[in-house]
Amino acid sequence: MSGLERYRAFLVDVDGVLVRSGTPIPGAAEALRALQEVGSVIILTNNSTRSRAQTAAALEELGFPVDQGMVVTSSYIAARWLLEHHGKRKVWVLGEEGLVRELSLAGHRPVPPEEAEWVVAGMDRFLTYGKLADALRALLSGARFLATNRDGTFPTPEGLLPGAGAVVGAIQGMGFSPEEVVGKPSPIAFEIALEVAGVGPGEALMIGDRLETDILGAKRVGLDTALVLTGVSREADISQQGITPTLVAQDLPALVQGKFRRLR
Amino acid sequence: MSGLERYRAFLVDVDGVLVRSGTPIPGAAEALRALQEVGSVIILTNNSTRSRAQTAAALEELGFPVDQGMVVTSSYIAARWLLEHHGKRKVWVLGEEGLVRELSLAGHRPVPPEEAEWVVAGMDRFLTYGKLADALRALLSGARFLATNRDGTFPTPEGLLPGAGAVVGAIQGMGFSPEEVVGKPSPIAFEIALEVAGVGPGEALMIGDRLETDILGAKRVGLDTALVLTGVSREADISQQGITPTLVAQDLPALVQGKFRRLR
Repeated sequence: MSGLERYRAFLVDVDGVLVRSGTPIPGAAEALRALQEVGSVIILTNNSTRSRAQTAAALEELGFPVDQGMVVTSSYIAARWLLEHHGKRKVWVLGEEGLVRELSLAGHRPVPPEEAEWVVAGMDRFLTYGKLADALRALLSGARFLATNRDGTFPTPEGLLPGAGAVVGAIQGMGFSPEEVVGKPSPIAFEIALEVAGVGPGEALMIGDRLETDILGAKRVGLDTALVLTGVSREADISQQGITPTLVAQDLPALVQGKFRRLR
Repeated sequence: MSGLERYRAFLVDVDGVLVRSGTPIPGAAEALRALQEVGSVIILTNNSTRSRAQTAAALEELGFPVDQGMVVTSSYIAARWLLEHHGKRKVWVLGEEGLVRELSLAGHRPVPPEEAEWVVAGMDRFLTYGKLADALRALLSGARFLATNRDGTFPTPEGLLPGAGAVVGAIQGMGFSPEEVVGKPSPIAFEIALEVAGVGPGEALMIGDRLETDILGAKRVGLDTALVLTGVSREADISQQGITPTLVAQDLPALVQGKFRRLR
């Protein structure tokens, strides 16, 4: 590995960097291992359906050297943000089991809609009209609204599926905007990842596949960034979107082997 | 009836004007009959779940003198707009049976998501994640997007429930904005209602309960407007929202009896 030794930590996205359509990207597991020899590796994902433990287990099963202490999910970020800014709260969750789990681990208490102090919304593959009606009831009863992220879609082996953005958009369509959206590109996501890594922004590299979330958000917090071309963004998007990463590489293995282009 | 004789047609909203929480507003049926002696009455509703025939039948059952020829629903407006601007099209519907029916009556053809030229979205009390995934598939396959309306909620005996705004918001949250939203406050809704009534804007009065849809939209088309206070908007909202109707009355019977305040 040449050129990445100056970093003490690496924040690594999952979809499009380690995994594509549910399958490991060739060489990514070995590359992750090589990164771990240089510094701390933090897995930073907007996936809100899983807890940290579930995310670690799923990645381990695919052959990645990951344990839950190095995982930062938007479900975890939401739970921590709520705790740090508002204390332990009564929550009603529009989302999946992993989000409920992280909220509970942080000391928040899932309650029926009418009793909720906060509606916490993330991706929900079991979304129904009835759940939206419950969310509305909670919000009309005075609950505040926190969202894990706004990703419109996410890639699967069967193609793109609706992401948390669809759930958040449905609630917004009823007249309620989230007070905070904690996942990437929010600075909250990067700040918590840096804190878990125990480093400052100048010491870490964010490695991601999406210019408008991974790269833009990390740049705003003062992180160096590396775009890999195995996911959403193409090289031509850089000038088109006007979002310039520090480094560009074909994929994670190339990046780790020093085969990258420095843009600034 | 004193003071309304100058109008040749009346556009009348349903929820909050004729019906509240599924129950007829006292005296509203008689008032509607009295209006019909003065001019044409058009029922103009953003409810997209029913066809014109279904809406007429439901109102008749509640004792209102209504037949389908005088009903204009957002499902009908969507079907007509699509026909007039784009011809008979292959559609995929995210909405209920009444919307499918009006689209079919206009000559459009419901098809699977991959074959759709247009996604037409309205209120859907049977919304699921799977339907959103189907809508996404259609849109990613190149379908265009038409929405019936954006009402965030609607009143029921059990309280407010999510409206078409939630469905449209979910699709927007996936990254697709509607090319057109035809229901109130869109001018399209009022123009079609006037055409069905066979009168010009200067000859008709819009009677509604919501300043930001019924009154604002009608004013923009040049209609006189009457706000009744049996629904969403209160009298204090007029100055607060800066939307001034021509007339204000306690309810439809009061309006028809000439017990209204002229504001401009």
